[in-house]
Formats: sequence, C-alpha cells, structure tokens
Amino acid sequence: MSDPLSLKQVAAIHAYWRAANYLSVGQIYLRGNPLLERPLTLADIKPRLLGHWGTTPGINFVYAHLNRLIVANGLDMIYIIGPGHGGPGLVANAYLEGAYTEHYPAIERSRGGMERLFRQFSWPGGIPSHVSPECPGSIHEGGELGYSLAHAYGAAFDNPGLIVACIVGDGEAETGPLATSWHSNKFLNPARDGAVLPILHLNGFKIANPTILARIGKDELTDLLRGYGHEPYFVEGDDPELLHQAMAATLDTVLRRIETIQAEARATPATPPTRPRWPMIVLKTPKGWTGPRTVDGLPVEGTWRAHQVPIADFKKPEHLDQLDAWMRSYRPAELFDAAGKVREEISALAPTGHHRMSANPHANGGALLEPLSLPDFRDFAVALDVPGAVEAEATRVLGHYLREVMRLNLDSRNFRLFGPDETASNRLDAVYDVAGKAWMGEVEPIDINLSPDGRVMEVLSEHLCQGWLEGYLLTGRHGFFSCYEAFAHIVDSMLNQHAKWLKVSRQIAWRRPIASLNYLLTSHVWRQDHNGLSHQDPGFIDQVANKTSDIARVYLPPDANCLLSVADHCLRSRDYVNLIVAGKQPEWQWLGIEEAVRHCTAGAGIWHWAGVQDDDPDVVMACAGDVPTLEALAAVMLLREQVPDIRIRFVNVVDLMVLEPSSEHPHGLDDHAFDALFTTDTPVIFAFHGFPATIHTLTYRRTNHRNIHVRGFKQEGTTTTPFDMVVLNDLDRYRLALDAIERIPRLKAQVPAARDRYWAAIERHKLYIAEHGEDLPEIRDWRWSA
Amino acid sequence: MSDPLSLKQVAAIHAYWRAANYLSVGQIYLRGNPLLERPLTLADIKPRLLGHWGTTPGINFVYAHLNRLIVANGLDMIYIIGPGHGGPGLVANAYLEGAYTEHYPAIERSRGGMERLFRQFSWPGGIPSHVSPECPGSIHEGGELGYSLAHAYGAAFDNPGLIVACIVGDGEAETGPLATSWHSNKFLNPARDGAVLPILHLNGFKIANPTILARIGKDELTDLLRGYGHEPYFVEGDDPELLHQAMAATLDTVLRRIETIQAEARATPATPPTRPRWPMIVLKTPKGWTGPRTVDGLPVEGTWRAHQVPIADFKKPEHLDQLDAWMRSYRPAELFDAAGKVREEISALAPTGHHRMSANPHANGGALLEPLSLPDFRDFAVALDVPGAVEAEATRVLGHYLREVMRLNLDSRNFRLFGPDETASNRLDAVYDVAGKAWMGEVEPIDINLSPDGRVMEVLSEHLCQGWLEGYLLTGRHGFFSCYEAFAHIVDSMLNQHAKWLKVSRQIAWRRPIASLNYLLTSHVWRQDHNGLSHQDPGFIDQVANKTSDIARVYLPPDANCLLSVADHCLRSRDYVNLIVAGKQPEWQWLGIEEAVRHCTAGAGIWHWAGVQDDDPDVVMACAGDVPTLEALAAVMLLREQVPDIRIRFVNVVDLMVLEPSSEHPHGLDDHAFDALFTTDTPVIFAFHGFPATIHTLTYRRTNHRNIHVRGFKQEGTTTTPFDMVVLNDLDRYRLALDAIERIPRLKAQVPAARDRYWAAIERHKLYIAEHGEDLPEIRDWRWSA
Repeated sequence: MSDPLSLKQVAAIHAYWRAANYLSVGQIYLRGNPLLERPLTLADIKPRLLGHWGTTPGINFVYAHLNRLIVANGLDMIYIIGPGHGGPGLVANAYLEGAYTEHYPAIERSRGGMERLFRQFSWPGGIPSHVSPECPGSIHEGGELGYSLAHAYGAAFDNPGLIVACIVGDGEAETGPLATSWHSNKFLNPARDGAVLPILHLNGFKIANPTILARIGKDELTDLLRGYGHEPYFVEGDDPELLHQAMAATLDTVLRRIETIQAEARATPATPPTRPRWPMIVLKTPKGWTGPRTVDGLPVEGTWRAHQVPIADFKKPEHLDQLDAWMRSYRPAELFDAAGKVREEISALAPTGHHRMSANPHANGGALLEPLSLPDFRDFAVALDVPGAVEAEATRVLGHYLREVMRLNLDSRNFRLFGPDETASNRLDAVYDVAGKAWMGEVEPIDINLSPDGRVMEVLSEHLCQGWLEGYLLTGRHGFFSCYEAFAHIVDSMLNQHAKWLKVSRQIAWRRPIASLNYLLTSHVWRQDHNGLSHQDPGFIDQVANKTSDIARVYLPPDANCLLSVADHCLRSRDYVNLIVAGKQPEWQWLGIEEAVRHCTAGAGIWHWAGVQDDDPDVVMACAGDVPTLEALAAVMLLREQVPDIRIRFVNVVDLMVLEPSSEHPHGLDDHAFDALFTTDTPVIFAFHGFPATIHTLTYRRTNHRNIHVRGFKQEGTTTTPFDMVVLNDLDRYRLALDAIERIPRLKAQVPAARDRYWAAIERHKLYIAEHGEDLPEIRDWRWSA
Repeated sequence: MSDPLSLKQVAAIHAYWRAANYLSVGQIYLRGNPLLERPLTLADIKPRLLGHWGTTPGINFVYAHLNRLIVANGLDMIYIIGPGHGGPGLVANAYLEGAYTEHYPAIERSRGGMERLFRQFSWPGGIPSHVSPECPGSIHEGGELGYSLAHAYGAAFDNPGLIVACIVGDGEAETGPLATSWHSNKFLNPARDGAVLPILHLNGFKIANPTILARIGKDELTDLLRGYGHEPYFVEGDDPELLHQAMAATLDTVLRRIETIQAEARATPATPPTRPRWPMIVLKTPKGWTGPRTVDGLPVEGTWRAHQVPIADFKKPEHLDQLDAWMRSYRPAELFDAAGKVREEISALAPTGHHRMSANPHANGGALLEPLSLPDFRDFAVALDVPGAVEAEATRVLGHYLREVMRLNLDSRNFRLFGPDETASNRLDAVYDVAGKAWMGEVEPIDINLSPDGRVMEVLSEHLCQGWLEGYLLTGRHGFFSCYEAFAHIVDSMLNQHAKWLKVSRQIAWRRPIASLNYLLTSHVWRQDHNGLSHQDPGFIDQVANKTSDIARVYLPPDANCLLSVADHCLRSRDYVNLIVAGKQPEWQWLGIEEAVRHCTAGAGIWHWAGVQDDDPDVVMACAGDVPTLEALAAVMLLREQVPDIRIRFVNVVDLMVLEPSSEHPHGLDDHAFDALFTTDTPVIFAFHGFPATIHTLTYRRTNHRNIHVRGFKQEGTTTTPFDMVVLNDLDRYRLALDAIERIPRLKAQVPAARDRYWAAIERHKLYIAEHGEDLPEIRDWRWSA
C-alpha cells in the first residue's frame, strides 16, 4: 500500500493522538497543574491512583484514525470499546470533540475545565474509571468483559447507514460470550443492516498474563479470524509514524470493502444477499504504548506491568520526574493554548455535530426511540364466559399478538424477537407469518422460515441473544427475549450489568429513556417435567427482584389474557427490566379480558368466584404463577368437598412487587391494601412459582407475615409427570388443602383424617404414575366447577 | 486411506451400532414387547414419548468405533457427550457393556431386563431423558449445553494415560462457553496431561434451525478449527459401510498422532514441550441417521424434525407400522437371543473391565479420590495478642497456606488453583513459588511464572475456570477457584448445574463422594471502590444459599486466621459447594488462631471483648463479613463514647447457614442456641456483607426476627473511596451506631442528638472525600481500642 497520508496529515493525527493521550494520563494522575505550567509536585498528584493506562493509547489511536475516516467520508459511526477499563481514553476524546463540555458545562475547554476533567476521574462524586453511562457516545460499560461485539451487532441491526467500530480487547476475547460473538456476522444482512468493524487490539497482556490470541502466531490467528468469516487486515508495530500510515491505509481499504459489500447487496433488492466476508482489523501495538519504557528498572511498556497505573508510589522522587517527563513527551504546549483550550488546528480535525462519535444520537438511543405501534391486545383475547371454561396455550395466544406487533412495525424496522432456538418451542411461531428468522448462513431446501430479512433472532447462545438485544435497545429500538426459564441464569451477569447501566442512566439528565428489557420465561420449572432437573429452576425471578425498585418488574400472569395485558404493558414501558413468567402448555383459563386488565392493573386481587364467604375467611389461599394458580384452585375445590362449611378467600398475585412494602417499591401495596387482601391474622397458604424464600423476603414486614405459609420450588425435580413435579415440591393441590386444614384452628379435630386423605391421594398418585407413566385422569382432566 | 477394516469387522461394528440404536429407540418408545416378538400394538407404546433421537445414532456410532480403538490398543478412555440430550444412546451402550446391569441388577441382560430398561427411561421413578449422574461412565450432565469440552480438559489434566473423547454438538458449539473452550489446548501439556479428542458432530440442526458451523462451508470450518489449534479430520456421509471404514481409518490416524505427540513430549523431560497441533474429528452425518426418512410426507432424517421423537401421535395406525418397521430395520433377532440377551459375538466386541467407558473409574472420580496432604494451617496464622493489634491481607495469608498445600501435593498431581487472570491480583501469588501458571502458548522473555508444568490455571474466562475445575473434581482431584465477587455471577448457571449433579449423585450408592467445589470470592463488593459499580455485587452468596442444605455452605471469615480455618475445612470436605468470601486488602485482625478455630467451628459466637455488659444487652450488634465486622466494631466504639452506660452484645457470624433453623440446614443453630446469641426480644443491628434480604430469608422463623434490622448492599456504588461505599449503602459505623440508638427504647430522648451527630459525621465525610479524594484519616487510621 502506498502511504495515504501527507506528512502534514500524519503530524496532525499524531498531535490529536498526543492530545488524547495527554488528557488520559492527566486524568489518571493529576489533581492540579493540568497544563504542566510548572514542574509536577506531589501536591499535583492524586492521593489514590486509579485507572487503566495499558489499553488507553490504543483506544486513542483508533479514535483519532476513525475521526479522519468519518470526516473524509461523512460517516455515521459509533464506537464500542470492549476494553472499557480504558475509560480515560474515551472521556479524553469526548472532551476533545466538545461533546463532554456540552453535557457537562463545568468541564469547559480551559485550564480550569481541564483541571476539573482530570480531578473528577475516579474521584468521589466524579466519574468512574471505566467507560460508563456518564460518558457521551458510549452504549457499553467496560467493567465486565465479553459483550462488546454482541452490543455492536445489536446496534448495527436495522441501521443501514451506521458503521459500528468495535474494539475487542485480546483479554476479553478469551471470554465465552466474546468468543461466540464473532459468529454474529451470520445474522447481519448487508442490504438491511449497518456494518460492524471489529478491531482486535492485540496488546498482548491481561492483568498479569499474556493473552491467548497474542501467543498463537499470526498464521493460526489468521485462520481463526477467517474461520469466523472475516478477512483480517493486520496493522502492527510500535513506530507511530509508520503505524499512522498503515492504519489510515487499512481503514481506507476496509471502508471501501464495506461500501462495496453494501452496494452489491443493495443493488438488486430482489436477489437475497449472500453472506460476505466482512473485513476486520488486527491492531498489534504495545500495551501502554508511549508510556514509560521502564519503571524501577523493570520493563513496563509492552508488558502486563502497563495494565493499570504504570508509575506509582510517589514517595520515590524519581517517579515524579518520570511522570513529568512522560506527560511532557506529548508536548502539551503544542496541543493546548495558554488558557488551556485545545488548539484550533487540532480540534478542527474532529468531525462536527452528530458525526462526532461522542455525540452520535445512536449512542443515546432514547433520543431516537419511537414508540411501537401496538395492536389492541384485547383482539387476541381468549373468549370465556366462566372461569375454567376453556383451555389455551398462553404463549401461543401471545404469539398471535406479537405477530401483529411485528406486522405493525415492519416499516419502522424497530422491533425484533430474540431467543435461543426456541421461538417455535415456546409457541411464538405465529410471528413467522410476518417475519422469518434472520439467517445469512447457507440455506438448504429443507429449511423453513429462514431469511436474510428475518426479524426473529435465533442462535443457541443466551449470551448472544441478550447482548444483541441490549445493543438494539440501547440504540433506541424495541425487543422481546423468550427463553427457557432455567437457562436464563446463563445471562444472570449480563442482566446485572444492564440493570446497573439503567440505574445510572436514569440519573443522567441527557440520557433519554430507552425501551425496557423484556424477558418472557416460558418452558418453566413446572412444565419441564420431560426434560428433567437441569431444566428446572425458577431462580431468575430472584435475580431480577434483587435489583433496585426503579428497575425491577416481575409478572406471573395466571392465564393467557393476563399474559396479553402484561405483555402490552411491558412493551410500552421504558427503562425497566420486565420479567414475565408464563407457560406454554394448554391450561385452563380463568379471566375474561376485561377482568384480566383490571386484575393486572391492580397487580393482585381477590377472585371472589373462587372463594367461599371470603369476607371473613378461615384461610387465605394465595397464589402467583400459572401452575400454582391451578393447584390452588384445585385445592379450593378439594377443601369445599372435605370441609363443607369452610370459608376461603382466594388471592392471585400477578405483579410480584405488590407484595413489597410501598416504601420499598413503587408497585408495593400500602399496608392497608395489603392487609385488605391478606388480612392481619388469618392463615395464608401461598402457592408460589419460585423459591418460597422469595415471598418471605418480600413480605417479612407485613402485619400478617408470621401466618404466611409458602409452598414453592425446593430444588426437587427429575424427568417425571407434570403433576409429580408439584408433588415432589409439596406444591400440589392435596398438600395445599392439607396445609389449610392444618392451619385453621377450628378444624383441629379434622387434621388426622385430612392427613390420611393426603397420604392416600399421594400414594394413589405415585402408584398410578409408576404403572402408567402419566398422571391420573382426574388430574389431567381436572377442571374448575364453581 | 486404505480400508482398515475387514468385511467381517465392518459387519461386527455395524451390528454393535444397530444394537445400540435398537436399544435407544426402544427406550424412547416402548413399555412392552422389547424384542418385537409380535407386531407392535398401541399397548406397547409409552403414553408420553420423551427423548431426543436426533443426536443418538451419531453418539452410538462414535461409541462403537471408540470401543474398537480401545480394544485394539488397550486404551484408557472416557467419553463426554456434549449433546447429552441423547441420553438413551449412552444408557444403551452402558447396557451393552454390562456396566449398567452391574450397577442396576434389575436391568439384567434378558427380555425382562430389556423391558425394564426401556420402560424406566423418562418414566416417573425411572431415569431422566438426558445423560445424568445415574448413567455409568458419565461425568457430564447433558441438559444445559456448552460445558463438554471444558469438562473434557479438566478430566485430562494430570491424567497422562487417559484419552478423553468428547463429542461436541454443533448446536452446543454456538454457546459462548463452548466457543472459548477450544482454546483449552493452550493449557494442556502433552508430557504431563492426558489427551482430549474433540469430535465435532455436525448433524446440521438444533431444535428448529440449522446450526452455524454446518452452514459456513468446509473451508471456513477448517480455518476455524485450525485457528483453534487443531488439525481437523473429516468423516462425512450417510452410507454406513463407507462411514465405518472412514471412521476406523480416521481414528487409527488420530490415535497415532496423539501417541506421537505424547511420545515426543515425553521423550526428553528436560526440554519443555511445545504446543502441538492436536488432531480432532469432524463427523458429518445426518441428524436422526437410520431413523425414518419421512413421516406424514415430511422429510425427517437429516432435518431438524429428527431432533426429538420423530414419530409421534400413534392415533394414526400407520405410525405404529412405521415404528415397527424402523425398529425391525435393525434386525433385532440377529442382535439378541431368544431370552433377550445380547448375542455373544456382539458383546464380545466391547472392551472389558475398566477399559469399558461405562466402567472407567475416572468417570466415578470419588472412587479414585485421595485426600490432600494438608499442612497445619496454624503454622500460617497471624500472631496477635489483642484484637485489632495488627493488620494483614487475609488472602495473602491464605496464599502462604495454599503454597504449602501445593507443595505437599506436587507428587500426587491432584491439586490445582483456578482463576481468571487474578491469582496475583487476589494476592495468592505465593503459590508461584511452588508451581507456575500452566501455559503452552508462545513465551517471551518478559514473561514470568509461566510453565507447561504450571498448576495455576489462569484464563480470562470464568466459564473455562469453572468448567475445567468441575472436570478435575469429577475425576477425583481437588481444586480451588478464586474470583472477583461480582463476576462469579458469570458462572451462576454452571454452579446450578454442578449443584444439581452433586444433589443427585449423593443419592446414587455407587457414585463415591468427590472433593467439594471451593470458591474464594475476594476483590469483593466493599473493596471494589476503585473499579466502580460493575465490580460491586454480593449476590453470588444467594446463588449458593438457595441450593439444598446438603450441598450449600457459605463462609464469611472476618479475618485472616478465620479464613485459614475455613479454607482448611473446605479442602477436607466432600460433595459440597463451599463459598468463602474474604477480602484481600490490609485489614485489622481480631482473633488469635485458636480463638479463630473455635469461632469457625461454632459458626457464630459472641465476642465478649467487643461487648459491654453483654449478658443483658440493650442491643445486639451482629455482623457477617470482614468489612461489616470492621464497621460494627467501629460502631461499638462510637456507642461507648456516645452512651457511656450502653450495654452491647457483639455477635459475629462466620458460617452463614447457622442462621437457618436447624430443621432446614444441618449447620443451623437450634432455636435455643440462636436465642442465646440473638436474644428473644432485644434489638439486633445486623451488618451484613450481602443483600439484607438474605439475612431475613434465613432468620424469618426465629423468635426475635421482628427485631432484626439488617444493613447490607442495596445496589449503591460507583468509583469512590472504600468508606464511601459503606456510607452509600448505610452500612457505615455512624449509621450502625444511630440504628442502635434509635432502637433502644430507654435512649429515646437521645435520638435527636444522635441524628444530628450522624448527619454531621456524614457531611464531614462527604466534604473531605470530595476535597481530598480519599477517606478521612480517622477512618483510614481507625483501630480498635478496648
């Protein structure tokens, strides 16, 4: 390649890079003397030195070169930083571009502003040391590694004009989620979607070790990246002058390749595009590049010792001199004027307006968010005259609604469904009538519903589903993630990080609300009897419930109509994590659609049709979840037979957070309302979908808590029958009925007989399933009779 | 390649495969008529058809060929099945080899035994549909996909004579954990460790979709696998006769390659081995191979429709005929004699004794387990005369102990340390004195502590650390996993699955106890002030605590000596998940080693030296966790100043499960003992390391629960100072002191003044850290003065 840059251009880019590096080092070290107007003294140094230098010069190098590319080509580009510990780099660039000052006027482009910029970094009340929501231009928190490339693809979907540059650290490349994210290119349609430009930054070291990809040799690495479907372009070295030319030439080449791919795919809309070999860059530069070569006689630049703060312990006076020399090596006087403002010839190199990566609206997705066009969910309701009159598969009903959501928003291209190979298994396959499954791999005649234009994202990786969806939401679109309940735990940690992002973003005025992260957990614990213990775990509820109350919402719709109402609500909401747990199997339906809406709006309520003299009950039979509701209703029917004069109140909870005190959660019932449902002194039998402890955690402050007796999942399971699952966990109708009788004082004399009945029923059940391999007809055919 | 098998050998292997396939189909479908002695009727068919046929013939094909290889070469081999939904296949093979009958005498090799074999599969009270602990020869549950290859490497480490054959499904290959597991070969030393033989089974489809790796073309797939460091050998087709020859030839080639690699590496022990290009196999055969080609006019064999039960709905009579014909296509009369016994010429093909993969002792690791040689942990104790006299870094002290554990067991080669690039960061680096970090990648002069013989496993993937460790433990060895607390959530789901495995295994008589899974979570929530919110999450405690009481153990040692005592206990234990949470920063030390042992043995106790007139207290100051203990002690000191006549009992909890009722957990204190610590009516201020709800969950049944007021992590965090972390979450000493005063009735009049003091202290703190960027000297230099 011939050199694409003039000497002047090289000098300009180099100056820009020096400025970003200077500002990065300043953030890590300085609390005063930002322009080095006098030799550094101990008083200028922060007392605690926090931050990650090692990755930062590489981030800054790429940033400077992407800016040249954006300006030269008028690009719409955002930047995702996998090695996001390099927070000072991204902050430095946002400051150089002016976006930082626009959002944070106190951080002005002056000596005082620069001092505040430096000081706030990793300072109490300031900003975190990693790339964080506070940083303009970012949609990616850099603390927990592994999700950058998935976020990048999520951002690129349905954004045909956008290029998402994504630095992948060679450390994070070792994580599982990142390792499989490379295959995202099998789901990106060059005609419809934007481009992702992965830049694998081989700086060679993690905290304390070399990285795998830096130590497998260039041939093997090339094979690997080609195996991932990419054409890798290598930019290697440590001489900035050579590297500037190489990086610029490579970026030009890569951009032309992207443009060619897109032009070809878009030239003939009638022909389905084939998967191209997308270009990518491998940037091999020293860790801590341009930093100190050695400290205390030990090599630093180009080693893991450059990972965090390369010079520390300023009790050694030579360290102060070394830092002073390091910072002056960037020649700050050439970069900033006497007032501390970036010199015009440098700031002029940056793009302007929304072309600045730090001000690209895609990175503040809420600013672009359009509400979904939603059909009236009532149109999809299951018609029923009386409770228990018909059966329906709740998620199949939901699928019909989602098909219309898909249809109504096809033109807006802002809604996708995500799931690990389970959309049909979860009975949402009606959506295929409108949009197939995105697929850019080879297609064979046997395949159905695959399409480059598909809007259902299926890949056998919960990590990818979650990462893509997060990227899609953070750039201002909408989505829905359906997953087997037990395997949602695979993304526990990703949920944690997204919830943290939302929590912090809500406190940042310029971050606009984004669409909520909506989970549908179906194929749930009580109906995974066929798949066995590995598929049986309701703990994801707790994973959501332990988030702060401004984020966490948990819904357990008892039937299809409630599921419709809840789903509609979730798709309209913003900045939440909404967890919906609902089964896919045929189950009896309880509420007409208008009742369902009222019930879901209240979050919990008394089902008078299911109770007996429920104004003054002997017992409250409470439930949350579809299967527990079924068992609780069956228990009521048993109790009415066994104790003709029994008085029962039936309470169903659909919005789990109503159970929390109103002081703890905005959905929490006040104590008066809670006591009105659960009384202050009556025994409560609570049949719950998840772990019993969850209900105790939510209700321990309630007046009647000591009378609340919870049944739920207690880790018992195997491959067995559906009813045996509830029996194994003492959540079955017989047990609930016995629980009630045991706890009603006036029925004390009936307890021994009730226990005998209970054991007889369980014995009969056990014998029958051992003999027949399926549940008793009276269980399979059970229906409510008022 | 010339054909390696005689026609007779082909026929024999083919018969063996047919037998396994026949037994697999029988398990999925039949409850009677196992030998097809009469035409199938509806009564022979199970009422519920559960199981996964699609992957099964491939599993059986490989099994038959591995058996030939084992017999011909006298190999020591185990078999890990990534697509473990194919449970019937592995059960069928264990039955053919006789191991099944040895463990389950009722499943004898006769007509009756075969009927019971068929019937028990996916039948209530029988066995699960996936590969499970009940299956002899397996260490890998097949329900949650993605961990097979990591388990295989864990099994191979330190087993130089063992070959671990590992089928990787092309579905599971899409998961993140599997995608990064390929890189495990950079950590396997051919001189010291065994071999892993990955067999990527490209059957083309998942539940409902094609797989990525089946649709990227052979060239790209070859690049990918070469990029992973392998030499792939392809075996492709659907004609069994050709495939038998191809598979046998390929296995011979691959085995020779493995033997050559090992021989070269072992020939010159003085020369460090280099990383070889390990062979692997890509087996491309139709999904549901040998099953029905079409059902109801739709293609099945070779499509995703073969995934589960290819023929269902036996209300259609033609389905019964089709199943009958399918099963007879295996010619059962040639395979089993009239009594239902496998014919001698077929069973003679299997290996014998421990050479059978279903009877290999490595797959029942407890049978091989040797206890660790452990030093006396007291030798590493921090000496102290009085509480708070010295500071120490708890995990560094532990590191010295672990170094000796490593040294004492070097010859046994049965102990390794695992961690994601954080062993030194977590201050356990003393172990490097004895054993370095395992590394087979390129080495540069700058590197330290890397060695092909290393016993510290560091890779930036919590999934790999966990998967390797599980494989290592399940094959009868010992290990220790240290991890940043927040990022342990990355393996939540793996923990769940391992705990399920342990729970079931404990109920299987022939499965011997294995070493516990030991976690050390350090770099914990309260001392990640520098890394910010992404690094701050104590929720893994709940993830462990919600497991059944026969598995879960949670320890929060308050100082280094307690950590030593706890760690020693954990390394001696069996079949548990032990979670230890302990910090790495310099902190004051409280207990001498003998006191520490007594305290840890009790699990909780009163620290009389910290209390005042603690036999009749105004308040119980309780705590669990190192930082909460520090704050609680500081609060006591404040209270003694502020309320000179205050009576305080100080309770520290090190074993969290003592809080649960003794009816719920074997470590639980009985109510009398609990009340003796926490009283029945005195206010308790409980400073806790994790979420407050956890303490309420554990204690809600205790007499005094309504008086227990818990402070813990409430999701507040950022980059700030250590003390500000506890202030943000109301866990600081000032808050705890105020909490106490507010709850002691006789101090009611003092509350307003106490509140003023509290706010003044907080204001002073906030101002100071904003100005100085570090905590007040009185916080940093605080020490206990009795």
